Amino acid sequence: MPKIVDPTARRAEVVDATFAVIAESGFAAATLQQVADRAGINIGSVRHYFSGHGELLEFAMASMIERVSGRLQSHVDAVVTADQAQRAELTVKLLEELLPLDDRRRLEVAVWLEFSIAARTRPQLAELATKSAAGTRRLIGHVLSSMQQRGALRGDADITVETERLCSLIDGLSMGALLHPRTVPRTRVRAVLSAHLRQLRP
Amino acid sequence: MPKIVDPTARRAEVVDATFAVIAESGFAAATLQQVADRAGINIGSVRHYFSGHGELLEFAMASMIERVSGRLQSHVDAVVTADQAQRAELTVKLLEELLPLDDRRRLEVAVWLEFSIAARTRPQLAELATKSAAGTRRLIGHVLSSMQQRGALRGDADITVETERLCSLIDGLSMGALLHPRTVPRTRVRAVLSAHLRQLRP
Repeated sequence: MPKIVDPTARRAEVVDATFAVIAESGFAAATLQQVADRAGINIGSVRHYFSGHGELLEFAMASMIERVSGRLQSHVDAVVTADQAQRAELTVKLLEELLPLDDRRRLEVAVWLEFSIAARTRPQLAELATKSAAGTRRLIGHVLSSMQQRGALRGDADITVETERLCSLIDGLSMGALLHPRTVPRTRVRAVLSAHLRQLRP
Repeated sequence: MPKIVDPTARRAEVVDATFAVIAESGFAAATLQQVADRAGINIGSVRHYFSGHGELLEFAMASMIERVSGRLQSHVDAVVTADQAQRAELTVKLLEELLPLDDRRRLEVAVWLEFSIAARTRPQLAELATKSAAGTRRLIGHVLSSMQQRGALRGDADITVETERLCSLIDGLSMGALLHPRTVPRTRVRAVLSAHLRQLRP
């Protein structure tokens, strides 16, 4: 009986191998050969599931965006259905999903950063990168709007400006904590996020 | 009479060509051949001034750090010697040096980002990247401390936390404005920076 291979599972394995190579050695290292080696399959199998290098990278980037935004959405749902007492803590948890505070999120932030920078000079990735940046802003804007509706935001806060301020702060903190963990240790990342949220309140 | 070539000027030309290639096509594109083509000289001449690809990239990264930090330092001097009325405006000018608000700063931010991400997986660049991140934090910490000394900072501000918050905000804003200029237009970059500085005040 021939071995049954689930194509979706096999594509997911190749994508995980792609993330591992990018996180460890950078975007340029993620060639079809390196990814195949990492996944422990031959390059012909990779080509069976992806038409080429370009499609693999686009699919991998879309998978990372989907993975992170799915998790964020579940945090948003938790915040919305929580009672007043737990909302502040759950909001912190939501925002911390985007920060490299453990190995899983370190890998995600590394892959996200490598993809974002690569997208700057690779038109085929640019649309996904822009979609991802806009999606994060929409989600954080939603969190800030709901804080405003329940009177948990300073009266003078401009949602558009505050959304960009919080998104940029998280992007910059992510980058600092990932690239310079001694200069930007995890305790400081948490202290900065908490100071920022405190100052947003009335 | 043989043509006289100033080695310092020639190295600077090669470095400028390196910046142009990185800004346009990304870090991986900055091979000795591409840089030589961009500088309009042959690859042998590049090798005459730099022992190899590694030395060229390290020297280029150090030159960018020196260029930006020299300019920042002159802004710090201007802030320190200014009278009370002009200080707030000069502080904004100083911080805006780090943001991609015109073509010169767009190129600098692009090169800085590409170098920072490349340094993540290239040990020979990592020390310079860490030095640069620490230097920016020292400088912004100095600006915030001097605001505190003249009573221009909120009483509850923790300088270490506020320094990281402002540095991360600027890094994230730089990245957003560079990578997604339509999602993060220049007017919004300025509005975010100004909202942040306003909230730092007592």
